[in-house]
Amino acid sequence: MRNDFNNTRPSILESGTPLFCDLYHLTMAQAWFLDGKAEEIKTSESFFRRCPFGGSYLLAAGLAEFSQWLNNWHFSDEDIAYLRDLKNADGSNRFSEDFLNYVKNDKLRVTIKAVNEGEVIFPNEPIYSVTGPCWQVEVIEAALLNIFNSQSLIATKASRIARASTLDGVQRPLLEFGLRRGQELGCFSATRASYIGGATGTSNVAAGKHYGIPVSGTMAHSFIMSYENELDAFKAYMRTSKGNTTLLVDTYDTREGIKNAIRAAKETGIKLMVMIIDSGDLAYWAKEARKIIDEELENMEDKSLISDVKLVASNDLDEYAIENLVMVQNAPYDIFAAGTKLVTAYDCPALGGVFKTKRYKGEPKIKIAEGKTTIPGDTDVVRIIRDGKYDGDVICRANDKLVENGRLVSDITSYTLGSQNMAKAVFSKGEEAYTLLQPLMENGKFVRIPEFNVNVLQERAKNNLAMLDESHKRLSNPHIYGVGLETRLFNLQQDLIRAHSGRE
Amino acid sequence: MRNDFNNTRPSILESGTPLFCDLYHLTMAQAWFLDGKAEEIKTSESFFRRCPFGGSYLLAAGLAEFSQWLNNWHFSDEDIAYLRDLKNADGSNRFSEDFLNYVKNDKLRVTIKAVNEGEVIFPNEPIYSVTGPCWQVEVIEAALLNIFNSQSLIATKASRIARASTLDGVQRPLLEFGLRRGQELGCFSATRASYIGGATGTSNVAAGKHYGIPVSGTMAHSFIMSYENELDAFKAYMRTSKGNTTLLVDTYDTREGIKNAIRAAKETGIKLMVMIIDSGDLAYWAKEARKIIDEELENMEDKSLISDVKLVASNDLDEYAIENLVMVQNAPYDIFAAGTKLVTAYDCPALGGVFKTKRYKGEPKIKIAEGKTTIPGDTDVVRIIRDGKYDGDVICRANDKLVENGRLVSDITSYTLGSQNMAKAVFSKGEEAYTLLQPLMENGKFVRIPEFNVNVLQERAKNNLAMLDESHKRLSNPHIYGVGLETRLFNLQQDLIRAHSGRE
Repeated sequence: MRNDFNNTRPSILESGTPLFCDLYHLTMAQAWFLDGKAEEIKTSESFFRRCPFGGSYLLAAGLAEFSQWLNNWHFSDEDIAYLRDLKNADGSNRFSEDFLNYVKNDKLRVTIKAVNEGEVIFPNEPIYSVTGPCWQVEVIEAALLNIFNSQSLIATKASRIARASTLDGVQRPLLEFGLRRGQELGCFSATRASYIGGATGTSNVAAGKHYGIPVSGTMAHSFIMSYENELDAFKAYMRTSKGNTTLLVDTYDTREGIKNAIRAAKETGIKLMVMIIDSGDLAYWAKEARKIIDEELENMEDKSLISDVKLVASNDLDEYAIENLVMVQNAPYDIFAAGTKLVTAYDCPALGGVFKTKRYKGEPKIKIAEGKTTIPGDTDVVRIIRDGKYDGDVICRANDKLVENGRLVSDITSYTLGSQNMAKAVFSKGEEAYTLLQPLMENGKFVRIPEFNVNVLQERAKNNLAMLDESHKRLSNPHIYGVGLETRLFNLQQDLIRAHSGRE
Repeated sequence: MRNDFNNTRPSILESGTPLFCDLYHLTMAQAWFLDGKAEEIKTSESFFRRCPFGGSYLLAAGLAEFSQWLNNWHFSDEDIAYLRDLKNADGSNRFSEDFLNYVKNDKLRVTIKAVNEGEVIFPNEPIYSVTGPCWQVEVIEAALLNIFNSQSLIATKASRIARASTLDGVQRPLLEFGLRRGQELGCFSATRASYIGGATGTSNVAAGKHYGIPVSGTMAHSFIMSYENELDAFKAYMRTSKGNTTLLVDTYDTREGIKNAIRAAKETGIKLMVMIIDSGDLAYWAKEARKIIDEELENMEDKSLISDVKLVASNDLDEYAIENLVMVQNAPYDIFAAGTKLVTAYDCPALGGVFKTKRYKGEPKIKIAEGKTTIPGDTDVVRIIRDGKYDGDVICRANDKLVENGRLVSDITSYTLGSQNMAKAVFSKGEEAYTLLQPLMENGKFVRIPEFNVNVLQERAKNNLAMLDESHKRLSNPHIYGVGLETRLFNLQQDLIRAHSGRE
């Protein structure tokens, strides 16, 4: 590394560097290699245990960008040189030349199935299932989890805020304004995930350009302060920004600001499109703004100058603040802007998705721990649809073909997870259903290119969420969605628990 | 943009794209340009209002990487083409050709002073002072705040965790293990900031390589599970990783795990260096581990095999959990590993640093708002040192030369901020002092290259924190450090408040 301007951070996704991992992935890989086990085949699956924000679902996101890194995955000469230089505490080399040669000349050979971006998913369900030489399965873990955890978290947060912004079935535009408070370049993926989850635009121009997300913005107090007075600032902005007359009305006195905005429209003869309120009692000022606009309209000759003014609320908004504005205060806002609390998922800034061994050398594996016992073996999820709504998920063994042409091929019994009394759900042959895990990569080659277009992903998320009953989407204390284990998988888990008991 | 693998996210710092901004920075720039005001000179300064984590200080970080972006700052042809394509709602172009030509042909012409990375700073103090053509000052705001806010936040969090890891003046190694839970590529800067704040290593190999940060790691449960039993796994790892024998002992049963680790050392004849405990009652298991090691030592021939075993604690640690382990439970850990709660600053995942207009066309500016009234004009900070400790900060007008050769050149009176009764502090001519803002860039040219070496920055932070009295570093309810306004600046603020009253 160089300690100067020429050592700029790499574009991790583009470089595809396998060093986007934790050190132990490489030290364990070496131990396996030296012990002749690096080629042993394993399956690991990722899942999460608890929904964030007190909700009942997660919106999966990050697949396309994780795939991008996979697509470029290779050890560069520089990567190898770096690893070669690493020393143990006793001065010996951390990595042997044999091991470095082995990984340097290797290609990615894993097989991956994954839940699509924009699907709703639930605790304990497999999201990524990765099979391959054990060292490769392990060494992609951190990138998989980093991208999945962070993007799914923000997409889910956005979906909650978008829901709160919805009245009578119509979602008001939701703008993501979090760039200056985001967790550094995490703001880029936060913009992407927010859009997938239901934001309709972003202030982040670089992210907008990169992803093709509509960019949007208002005006800063600093603009107003660069003029002698607010009215002059408003008029100057109206004249120079005719197609986009957006005025921030709370720089000095919000009531005067609203009146000045209307005056600016009258005096310039230019149509005022948007007023933003960024401080104070947001509900009160929205109502006052509407009242003042209505009063002015009565006496105006050219009513079109202010008849379509949209009101934007910003200032520290999240789903709870917006729900309160919309449902409790009836604040007449047309657009919401959310920043910090959206892009950092402020009230729950990390998702604890994990990646666990499910099969090793052909044998299903289980890890037994209080409240954390894993589901053994390769798995998939069958999602049942009844009356056009998702009606329950059944985690099953990956190779049990339970669904064909969108229908269950046999009756299935599902042991509900988290139930105290082994509650069962029964689904019948012929019921509408689909499986969640889709092939992505086979032996290191993509068998399909994941969807990159964020508009398609946003639409998919919207359609998916529409299939979920309202009760599951409540912001607080939602109805928990039913997820169970299909009988054969349930029995496998029970057998392995019995086989382990006494042993530990 | 392309919706395929070939559209990988740019390296923002390397590209230096000015589009790393909010849209309104560009729309305001255009409004100023079209109104003939874009070249008007302004000064804006960044500061924060409240310390995160209930603490009393912030550790400044991010300067070198913000500078890297500034160093590469230019509109590419692609950036301009993107802006040219943006439309208003009515289909008109959002940006005029004249404006695009103006920015495309322009170079950065701002003058910047900044607080060094690794300095402790306090609420309301200027951190960056930026002067130049108003559109340029504005258009770098979001990048400045994004990098400063996120890196300072994490550096501060790390300094708190490092402090909690200190006993009898000696800081135990603190490893940052947050990659899989970080906010996507924000994990890169989180690793950097953690190190500056006092982490001594990271598991993130790519970040370790890029910044020259020591990389460190343990072992995953998946490694143990790839062998028939724990002892076999331990022995295999010992044999293949002689210089780095680190064993995770809680995969099945922690007591057996500790014993198996010792057995592995005995049976292989290889020295066991580290045991990691990642679950359960961390205090209990550390004491049990020490007890078991001590018992075994009595009967061992080659005591060196386990006589230097270090214990590592991980699992959801933050400063409170570590303080409790160290000070309350006397848990005999030698090393701590912190992940999620460090890299996301979990309990306060955003810092609200702002960037406000302080001078416009030569005139000091103020924004008056309940609890948020700004300090007008260009400012600097004089820090007083008494008995080798920081004894108080005085925000002053930037051009009042109050310090020369490390000494106050005159008596100064400081009106304490936040005081209800206009408390004053008096400092005398000749007292030891220094000013915080250092020139970085003049008219777009760097006048000094900021320090990039994270080891130097870590050392600087450590020395800086050592100058701060213990009472200010308490994790909860710290003693608040005194910050005031120098008399002339105080009077200027009062004058401007009076001049504004009645007007709003």
